[in-house]
Amino acid sequence: MDLHITNIINDLKNDDFDAYLLTQFTNVEYISNYKPTSFAFCIIKENPIIYASGMDMELARNNSSIEVKEYESYDVMINELKDDGIKSLAIEPTLPYSTYVRFRDDFTIDSKTYIDKQRMIKTPAEIEKITRATEIAQKSFLQLDILNNKSTEKEVAFDLVRHMIENGASKESFDTIVTSGAESSLPHTIPQDKKLTQPILIDWGAIYEGYCSDNTRTMVYTEKQQEIWDIVAESHDKAIKAIKPRMKCCEVDKVARDIIADYGYGDRFIHSTGHSLGLDIHETPGFSMRDETIIEEGMVITVEPGIYLEGEFGVRLEDTVYISRKANVIGDLPLNID
Amino acid sequence: MDLHITNIINDLKNDDFDAYLLTQFTNVEYISNYKPTSFAFCIIKENPIIYASGMDMELARNNSSIEVKEYESYDVMINELKDDGIKSLAIEPTLPYSTYVRFRDDFTIDSKTYIDKQRMIKTPAEIEKITRATEIAQKSFLQLDILNNKSTEKEVAFDLVRHMIENGASKESFDTIVTSGAESSLPHTIPQDKKLTQPILIDWGAIYEGYCSDNTRTMVYTEKQQEIWDIVAESHDKAIKAIKPRMKCCEVDKVARDIIADYGYGDRFIHSTGHSLGLDIHETPGFSMRDETIIEEGMVITVEPGIYLEGEFGVRLEDTVYISRKANVIGDLPLNID
Repeated sequence: MDLHITNIINDLKNDDFDAYLLTQFTNVEYISNYKPTSFAFCIIKENPIIYASGMDMELARNNSSIEVKEYESYDVMINELKDDGIKSLAIEPTLPYSTYVRFRDDFTIDSKTYIDKQRMIKTPAEIEKITRATEIAQKSFLQLDILNNKSTEKEVAFDLVRHMIENGASKESFDTIVTSGAESSLPHTIPQDKKLTQPILIDWGAIYEGYCSDNTRTMVYTEKQQEIWDIVAESHDKAIKAIKPRMKCCEVDKVARDIIADYGYGDRFIHSTGHSLGLDIHETPGFSMRDETIIEEGMVITVEPGIYLEGEFGVRLEDTVYISRKANVIGDLPLNID
Repeated sequence: MDLHITNIINDLKNDDFDAYLLTQFTNVEYISNYKPTSFAFCIIKENPIIYASGMDMELARNNSSIEVKEYESYDVMINELKDDGIKSLAIEPTLPYSTYVRFRDDFTIDSKTYIDKQRMIKTPAEIEKITRATEIAQKSFLQLDILNNKSTEKEVAFDLVRHMIENGASKESFDTIVTSGAESSLPHTIPQDKKLTQPILIDWGAIYEGYCSDNTRTMVYTEKQQEIWDIVAESHDKAIKAIKPRMKCCEVDKVARDIIADYGYGDRFIHSTGHSLGLDIHETPGFSMRDETIIEEGMVITVEPGIYLEGEFGVRLEDTVYISRKANVIGDLPLNID
């Protein structure tokens, strides 16, 4: 049996649960190699099974490493689970309330992060795919010739996605951010139909064989912009240097945040320092003030401090690192783009 | 006060709830015009409020029509709600279990579809945006010159998205499906790096001012493909003709399904006949076997019967209709593409 499933079954035994219900598409994919396109109920127990939507049956049979049955109804599924002796059910924290309600009268239920715990630690094969996604994304960025660009934000975003797909990505890993001028102070703004102004902030990533990449670069032009850029770069570099296995995630956030605060911009760093990624662009753990997760080898996490001056501009610099005995930056795109 | 909010407050009163918690991004957008990029808690009560993420504060203040406060912690938010006299809380069916758990000790909770009920009925302004999205998508499709295309599925999908963006879409409304040959029997397959073969199935849509469009066309080449196409077209046309306000949604599904079943392909129509769309690409109600929702004027729903012959090919034909005294097809792209 697959190691991921064995580990989860051990977790279930330790916590006295009979089965684990997974419905999040990337969780089902992680366990079975079949990524649902509509809905699926993946039940991990001694004999794991996926109840797949009728429209997915051909795909599921082709791809799934575990048994697949066509979903008929909640009643049929719940009765089959009860016939199998299932009395208690662990669920994902993200399970929708309305789905939880369908199970709660028949099973003892609580949410468990067994699957997140597995997905936190990437295998070498997973790190390779994230690295390939990052290389594709960074190569595509360099094809933009950004510094002489007379295009609109939307056009640049579109070119970047085209390059990524031509270079082998299946798609972008999230809506590409190309922003410039005052809008760059909005961390998640979307590209506009306006010609690029200054500074230029680009936050982008590719998906390669299901795995995401994530980077941000900001190109600055004035003395004030450069001053802010230097602070963010110092925070970025020192945070990465500080990362070691057995530290807590929040300690890395503190390193990044303290540097920015020391320069007087603490209240202008308005998000966490980073998030894990993999099959999803946002995974746990994250480098945030409240995340007490212990850093372990095999984690892949972004480091992305930023300073946002409302009405003026924003600067964010982001790399993704994988943790071995230290943090290794994935890809080789310089922070400073000339 | 906004009519949507007034209606929800009336629903709350009727069901003896003090407040309604919304977290789904398009629900918050629907109520306030501010679409979160990270997370938000929108509480509808006599004095509605949104607790927004710190990184969204500038965006939220710029866009929200209702009061915005920066989220600090669950404890602060819950205490403020309790100070405001809130004892019972209606939630969205989609609320993640882990969020529900944060509220359940302090409030009486049940899920309610007040917001879905509002969003089902589109205003003329919303129908206009869906129409514009559809026109952009259909115009872009016709720019493909699909019948003489020597490209790969991925290239065609990419061209289609580029045309949509050039024609004014903000983005595609879902991952564009361009599939051909045997893969077309997988309803939700993704474009491959292979040259187009036959038949060609394209399922695509644009987003315009936040609103989605959705269409599918299948181009067939052999006698067998044409035979299947004719059945699907008959099902599509007769289902649309049958739609009337005060029917049940499942009755429309039955019209479409019975025609396909009469030709002996009932078990090869492996999904529902249609779904509503709007700010989201999938909304309620849908034309499905189990949806007993009464059809009302102002609903916007797809009609998309299909027949999928595993290992051979699939045919799906999809239009989006808005309901007045009858069903009106949005856009004017013929079913039959020559």
